[in-house]
Amino acid sequence: MINQLTLIGVGLIGGSLARALRRANAATTLIGAGRHREQLEIARKLGVVDAVETDLAKACQGSDVIVLAVPLGAIRPVLEQIAPAVRENTIITDVGSAKASVVADVEQIFGDLPANFVPGHPIAGTEQSGVEASFAELFDQRRVILTPGATTSPAAVQTVRRLWEAAGAEVIEMSVAHHDAVLAATSHLPHMLAYALVDSLARQDDSREIFDYAAGGFRDFTRIASSDPQMWHDICLANRDALVESLECFTADLQTLTEAIRRQDSQRLLEIFRHAKQRRDDFCQ
Amino acid sequence: MINQLTLIGVGLIGGSLARALRRANAATTLIGAGRHREQLEIARKLGVVDAVETDLAKACQGSDVIVLAVPLGAIRPVLEQIAPAVRENTIITDVGSAKASVVADVEQIFGDLPANFVPGHPIAGTEQSGVEASFAELFDQRRVILTPGATTSPAAVQTVRRLWEAAGAEVIEMSVAHHDAVLAATSHLPHMLAYALVDSLARQDDSREIFDYAAGGFRDFTRIASSDPQMWHDICLANRDALVESLECFTADLQTLTEAIRRQDSQRLLEIFRHAKQRRDDFCQ
Repeated sequence: MINQLTLIGVGLIGGSLARALRRANAATTLIGAGRHREQLEIARKLGVVDAVETDLAKACQGSDVIVLAVPLGAIRPVLEQIAPAVRENTIITDVGSAKASVVADVEQIFGDLPANFVPGHPIAGTEQSGVEASFAELFDQRRVILTPGATTSPAAVQTVRRLWEAAGAEVIEMSVAHHDAVLAATSHLPHMLAYALVDSLARQDDSREIFDYAAGGFRDFTRIASSDPQMWHDICLANRDALVESLECFTADLQTLTEAIRRQDSQRLLEIFRHAKQRRDDFCQ
Repeated sequence: MINQLTLIGVGLIGGSLARALRRANAATTLIGAGRHREQLEIARKLGVVDAVETDLAKACQGSDVIVLAVPLGAIRPVLEQIAPAVRENTIITDVGSAKASVVADVEQIFGDLPANFVPGHPIAGTEQSGVEASFAELFDQRRVILTPGATTSPAAVQTVRRLWEAAGAEVIEMSVAHHDAVLAATSHLPHMLAYALVDSLARQDDSREIFDYAAGGFRDFTRIASSDPQMWHDICLANRDALVESLECFTADLQTLTEAIRRQDSQRLLEIFRHAKQRRDDFCQ
């Protein structure tokens, strides 16, 4: 049981974590902090947090755990503001979709990766954003990846692990570099494809008509293009190297497929489609 | 009310059309035809059709309407087999996802596009296939595109229009070339992206792990990669020119996005993501 927990950022992820912790009775007091008082007041009125505060340092005073649930681009300025209020035994974790950039930001502010900082990333979300879209079940049976460093305190890792388990998630650990490569492939790349597809089609002359004839498959396929643009901008910059590598690898494979269509290479086309279908059916059983 | 209707191919689309027509009491006798007797017997046992026949010419005898619901690659051999049994007043239509290739096949077999042949395409489907996956509601409120030629009989178009309306769909007409361009962009291109993505990731060393960490967005995004490989192979060849053009246009746009990430062009990234989100939210309200 955590006595006091501060959430910096009470949007979809922060709000859902607060709701899940409340459901599990895992923290006595939940403090919501952020820049926008109106958003915080909505969170308070919804009962997602007990108290709200726009002074981030003040919001962290006396807290056992601080969760940074802000877009990646906000991590560094937030750390700058809260650093003076962080005690040595305060555990800090984050929910960022890229981990090397978070570790770099932490090192920049604190000089090194403090023993009580546990980088984390819940593999969960929807295309919605904001506390109004948050719900307690978001992390149920979902995975949370922690990427502790060599000097991270095992006790701090344990606390963050228990926090996410209380929220319903399964917790696993891996290296920062491995996390960033895997997420570039499975999450960041598909988001880029969905954004690029909708943007590309929307810039065509007959775009209104194109969308008129789009069927259910297109709707599913492009759902993630409704995700928050600022958040994905931040992810692109934060995980730039791994994402560019994923994009280049995919583009080469797409050109191979295009070439197979152009030269009517039936065998190659069937190979690609059968292989993809088999693997998709296997992993989504 | 149609007296006798023959469905050549009783899979997801043919089976669903049969169920929908039965629901609407729009045809007295439904005959299911195809190469595989076992599949046909399943359709008959499920009550989807009244009678089954593997001799395609025989299956068409005495029918007022023939619906070709086979993969695009099977259109020409099927037409060869049924041509002798087709009377001048028999109406023929198809459900192919590309229309120029169907018209070319028809012209090849009949010498020209007969007045009673109405090319058609229901914009509906799931990633499933086979008569077991068929259901009467598949076409409810979905669009069916008809692409009649200059010599197509208005009465034949009217009959096919009523057939699809009875099945719950909204019917619209457009030219063959326009259909093929619009479908390349909204359906064929997204399917290629989904197939290419799953195939590309599955060929990486740590592919099992990659799929392990894939979240809900990835599941939605790749659902269409579970579609029938043979069907999509046929579509690629049948709509080759329009699809290759769509793929090339998308690849160029994806390279622009990759370049923007590489040079950390925040403004360009936000433009692309905001534009895509806005259009996606607009058309999927």
